[in-house]
Amino acid sequence: MRAGPSQDEIRRQNLGALLRYVHVHGATTRAELTTALGLNRSTIGALTADLAGAGLVSEGTPKETGRAGRPSLVVRPESARVYAYAYSIEVDRLRAARVGLGGTVLDRRELDRPRDLTAAEAAPLLAGAVKEMQHAVPGESICVGAGVAVCGMVRRADGLVRLGPTTGWVDEPIGAALSAELGCDVPVTVGNVADVAAFAEHARGAASGCDNVIYLYGDVGVGAGIIAGGRRVTGHGGYGGEVGHMKVVRDGERCERCECGSRGCWETEIGEHALLRHAGRSDARGRDALLAVFDAADRGDARAQSAVRQAGDWLGFGVANLVNIFNPEMVIFGGTMRDLYLAAAAQVRSRLNSNGLAACLEHVRLRTPKLGEDAALIGAAELAFERLLADPLDAG
Amino acid sequence: MRAGPSQDEIRRQNLGALLRYVHVHGATTRAELTTALGLNRSTIGALTADLAGAGLVSEGTPKETGRAGRPSLVVRPESARVYAYAYSIEVDRLRAARVGLGGTVLDRRELDRPRDLTAAEAAPLLAGAVKEMQHAVPGESICVGAGVAVCGMVRRADGLVRLGPTTGWVDEPIGAALSAELGCDVPVTVGNVADVAAFAEHARGAASGCDNVIYLYGDVGVGAGIIAGGRRVTGHGGYGGEVGHMKVVRDGERCERCECGSRGCWETEIGEHALLRHAGRSDARGRDALLAVFDAADRGDARAQSAVRQAGDWLGFGVANLVNIFNPEMVIFGGTMRDLYLAAAAQVRSRLNSNGLAACLEHVRLRTPKLGEDAALIGAAELAFERLLADPLDAG
Repeated sequence: MRAGPSQDEIRRQNLGALLRYVHVHGATTRAELTTALGLNRSTIGALTADLAGAGLVSEGTPKETGRAGRPSLVVRPESARVYAYAYSIEVDRLRAARVGLGGTVLDRRELDRPRDLTAAEAAPLLAGAVKEMQHAVPGESICVGAGVAVCGMVRRADGLVRLGPTTGWVDEPIGAALSAELGCDVPVTVGNVADVAAFAEHARGAASGCDNVIYLYGDVGVGAGIIAGGRRVTGHGGYGGEVGHMKVVRDGERCERCECGSRGCWETEIGEHALLRHAGRSDARGRDALLAVFDAADRGDARAQSAVRQAGDWLGFGVANLVNIFNPEMVIFGGTMRDLYLAAAAQVRSRLNSNGLAACLEHVRLRTPKLGEDAALIGAAELAFERLLADPLDAG
Repeated sequence: MRAGPSQDEIRRQNLGALLRYVHVHGATTRAELTTALGLNRSTIGALTADLAGAGLVSEGTPKETGRAGRPSLVVRPESARVYAYAYSIEVDRLRAARVGLGGTVLDRRELDRPRDLTAAEAAPLLAGAVKEMQHAVPGESICVGAGVAVCGMVRRADGLVRLGPTTGWVDEPIGAALSAELGCDVPVTVGNVADVAAFAEHARGAASGCDNVIYLYGDVGVGAGIIAGGRRVTGHGGYGGEVGHMKVVRDGERCERCECGSRGCWETEIGEHALLRHAGRSDARGRDALLAVFDAADRGDARAQSAVRQAGDWLGFGVANLVNIFNPEMVIFGGTMRDLYLAAAAQVRSRLNSNGLAACLEHVRLRTPKLGEDAALIGAAELAFERLLADPLDAG
């Protein structure tokens, strides 16, 4: 219902569009920008000058092209000087990184996370990692903010972690705790790890150019980041994508170590506990234990093979449901779902093909992440960069 | 990645925003438009003059306000003169209507549909209904196009009905057949009935003002129209929302009279066949037979009550999955799902509450359609009006 934009809004949109282009595509000639953005050369020149003046991009001559004539100037994001802090809070570890404009991880730290660590305990550890990294930040750098990827349901309004079934967090204000620890005035934005990883893979990873994507992320539990029509689907409060709590068995297993209080959730069939239990390793836990099951299956261990096949079949079962509901172009398997998919691709595809509707199966591609484990960090940084891209000169 | 708009694009956006506002809200004073659209009085005046010149709106003095001073002029959509044709192809009937700008059904026809009627047979029947209605169209009217709501999976690119499990249609070009029959040059847009009904309820019905909505529509089968972040979710090819084919039982009933080829689909537990079978009326079919079951349950028939309770429990089961996946503000029950929801609301709510995640349940409201059975017709017309609203003076 909104009316067209004012002149000021148009300038902001144009500045944002140009900066976003080089943020996603890297160094770009002025000529390419003219074509890509549909603006004339003088407008591109003026916008670039404004962004360069704010220290967000630089201009230079391209490498030798071998062609005659004056080469078009190249516009580069100031990746080393404009950055965001990114945090990833996972079941077994904490990660912090400094991510430059353009999506380059400039520096990083990783810490073990005991499974009972609270948000109040995690914040100083992450802040400590940031303080270490701050020593290496060059002068005249611009920090645009911080983003946090967390396993759990995040309230969009304020970043409160309402429920992190696998971290044990309930109503933990991790964003506020980090802001207080860092003592800085950069805004901290919190998102669900699957959502932000989907965001990153969509912007610059496996799903680049795809408008309808499901990124399935597993650790102990399972969640999804969903892109529909080119936009993130996060629901009314920000809690969307809880596909691990899609019930697939009416009177199934109680959802272990999860406060959902229900039974028969998809993650009770494809999550860490299910795979370890079916492989006869109920006492084990963690990523390494899971990888040991895949390894044993690879080496011919019958019980491990059976557990992997069964979980793969259930993986295909739930993916088929999501494919029928969303008609995506791509499903990406991240975290432990990557390992499971790679170990049981035949079962996943077979169940997907038998349960999926033909029209929905036509164009869907199954993929692993291109950004690997960095997707969570790069996606968390994207949360912070979003504000810069919406209004480059105000935030810059 | 798009740059800001040109002056021409801004004018189109402003014209579209003003026309959309009166299309959705009805007669509106210039003063309200100024506030709602954030444009100044002279711009609103100029835009209104352009739209009035094209015959899309009219201006007049409002009814007596009782306040001193010159009243603000009222802008009205030309509902009687600017219209779209709308068709709804359902399992047991065909409907055609003439819908005015502003969403008013000006005229309508309804025909029985034998369950084996093909698209080629349906098109002349619908065209005949339109020709009847054309006699009553006033002079100097503007037909902006036609929209079709159909039970089935519709390819967005060209409106081909890929699969209508309940109509028996496979790869039926209903849009092209209607265009040919009508012999007119107005474009015909085809959409899934649940999608277009959701569109209508979102624009001007029960979900007005809600950005995250699931509209569940049942006839023989079950589908959903999904609005996420204020936008329709229809997937890569246009086939999204096939929630009836979400599998809820691993080795369940084969999906009857449906070419999905699978088992344990949600609609095998909540669709027409399930309810009739569980009520001991396997030989019956159709809406009236279904209503007879609800009626019998109401009058104390134990078998009917048991069937209704069981189906209501399964309805809540699937709705909980969708609520966990989408975190919607509202779920609307349309078609036979309305009847089932009203007959078994306690079972639906109980299962939803036990299976839904607490954060996702917090703000979700369960509702019946405000536009009733007109939602399909009004939504089909909205498909045609969308083109007008995108560029009022070009299409007008």
